[in-house]
Amino acid sequence: MRKTVGWHAVDAATLQRAPVLRRALRPDDIAVRVDYCGVCGTDLHAVRGYRGERDPVLVPGHEFTGVVTEVGREVAGFDIGDPVAVGNIVDSCGECGMCRAGQENFCGDFPTLTYGGTDRRDGSATLGAYSREYLVRDRFAYHLPDGLDPAGAAPLLCAGITVWEPLCALGVGPGTRVAVVGLGGLGHLAVKLSVALGADTAVVSRTQNKAADAHRLGAREVLVSTDAAEMSAARDRFDVVIDTISVPHDLGPYLRLVALDGTLSQVGYLGPVTVQTTDLLIGRKRLGSAGSGGRPATTALLDFCARHDITADVEVLPSGRVNEALDRLERNDVRYRFVLDLSDLD
Amino acid sequence: MRKTVGWHAVDAATLQRAPVLRRALRPDDIAVRVDYCGVCGTDLHAVRGYRGERDPVLVPGHEFTGVVTEVGREVAGFDIGDPVAVGNIVDSCGECGMCRAGQENFCGDFPTLTYGGTDRRDGSATLGAYSREYLVRDRFAYHLPDGLDPAGAAPLLCAGITVWEPLCALGVGPGTRVAVVGLGGLGHLAVKLSVALGADTAVVSRTQNKAADAHRLGAREVLVSTDAAEMSAARDRFDVVIDTISVPHDLGPYLRLVALDGTLSQVGYLGPVTVQTTDLLIGRKRLGSAGSGGRPATTALLDFCARHDITADVEVLPSGRVNEALDRLERNDVRYRFVLDLSDLD
Repeated sequence: MRKTVGWHAVDAATLQRAPVLRRALRPDDIAVRVDYCGVCGTDLHAVRGYRGERDPVLVPGHEFTGVVTEVGREVAGFDIGDPVAVGNIVDSCGECGMCRAGQENFCGDFPTLTYGGTDRRDGSATLGAYSREYLVRDRFAYHLPDGLDPAGAAPLLCAGITVWEPLCALGVGPGTRVAVVGLGGLGHLAVKLSVALGADTAVVSRTQNKAADAHRLGAREVLVSTDAAEMSAARDRFDVVIDTISVPHDLGPYLRLVALDGTLSQVGYLGPVTVQTTDLLIGRKRLGSAGSGGRPATTALLDFCARHDITADVEVLPSGRVNEALDRLERNDVRYRFVLDLSDLD
Repeated sequence: MRKTVGWHAVDAATLQRAPVLRRALRPDDIAVRVDYCGVCGTDLHAVRGYRGERDPVLVPGHEFTGVVTEVGREVAGFDIGDPVAVGNIVDSCGECGMCRAGQENFCGDFPTLTYGGTDRRDGSATLGAYSREYLVRDRFAYHLPDGLDPAGAAPLLCAGITVWEPLCALGVGPGTRVAVVGLGGLGHLAVKLSVALGADTAVVSRTQNKAADAHRLGAREVLVSTDAAEMSAARDRFDVVIDTISVPHDLGPYLRLVALDGTLSQVGYLGPVTVQTTDLLIGRKRLGSAGSGGRPATTALLDFCARHDITADVEVLPSGRVNEALDRLERNDVRYRFVLDLSDLD
């Protein structure tokens, strides 16, 4: 075993610094010195649901960048010193139809999650990247392109890829009318990516508070979802609506924004969802969902971001302030993603 | 007013022959001698929900063929003696985005239904085609192509167009893998149309009872929905699933048949629908709904059916047996659509 240090949940309110044990380096592993790790809503939910010692050890963190410090003897694609990025999947069966289609995120045998998952080879619980070192199978690490700020790039690996896959699958490009619902960690990246793809992009937000930011990010307009007249006037107008609201909500008002034969893609996991048939039928609209991403799309996203100089708007905090970051995330007090700097663990 | 005769609901169990009053011919109207009218599930629901004299007069019937007997002075496209077909929409605002896009079925001001609707000009209640004559605005009548049997063609105007629109909107053609769930009035037409469009077509049915019919209609395979192993083996296999089940049901088993980036289109109105996010998210699947059709698609469907010699498989009954038809439809005892022959009303 290897020993590093990281942030463990001790109860639903607190992460505490403690040693983290990692497996010995495998032939196809790379060891990564974690420099930056984004703070995802999933991390918050995991911590707030933590019941102390009744649950397995919890070290969150599944969107990170760092530098390769060691490579297994079979690793061909990485060298010591390479800047790399890792997302929320670290293995998959590799054999099912989804894996063969490059959609390891939909692996029929369920992908191995970066934390809170179970290693496919030794059955151990995976521990996340709120720690100074992470060991990952080489197939699930990505070269971080030159020129991408490693702090701002970390959230691309979860928040970014989650909105990138539906944008691409729905053919967003010049001429597409896109509305992004919710301007948070995922939403602000959806806006940047949609704009860079050439689409006419709008933001739908509860208030005008983030209007200036929305325009700065490239949005052409801001619709206020609480303004019934404005929402009604925008009916049937958007080919693609990316709904990033992270709590269960009525999809009706957002489906009504979708144009004929368009799609509302809800990102992230919201449990059961109820829609009125008429909200789909009138306009032959479609409801989809997306989350995380496969290896080819992740590579394509990083390449696209490098070419278009896209990273997340981040607030970087030393990892020692992780509890403050989670508290503020819980209050939506972040524009638009916290990133932990893990160098304070040395 | 003009006077004809038709079948009125008197209670939730019975239709009775009685006079039907029609408006005087308008300049853009055609008068149609109704020869054949399909018996749609909507008709059954309307009759079973009829509360006698507390409700407005109910004459069902919204998929019919016949012959033009009179034309208004502004009508240019039809002559007396023309064989015509009419579906479940007889008017729309003509000005909203959906109407301008040729999707009068999604008219923002709600389309005028063939029965149970309200005429846009005089505010009268529309009475359907279980009657010997119907008056319709010329824009909402269609020339019945030569060679199409008028009895078998009648169901194309509601059952047919309802499955045709999603098949076209979803790009079904050679190479597309299509599954049709439920082999009834809509389902059997969906199979015929999908096969004629060149798609690999399967039928999903509760039993093997209709397997021979499914193959005769052109389906390559029949999946039995109650066979868990068979359904599991077919997971992620179909680009398009057309779900024609006409009662509320769990969509999960059918969504799981949908391939990566594919769509399940549920046809008809089922009220609120609940799906598990994971059934959409895993495979980035989409749920849509469709119903009825616009004028361009209806014209295209009739043309396609004439070229491919497609009509519904019908059981023609004299209209005097309409109550028997509704009773048998209620028991699913029909392969695959009842059509009333209205000539017995003369």
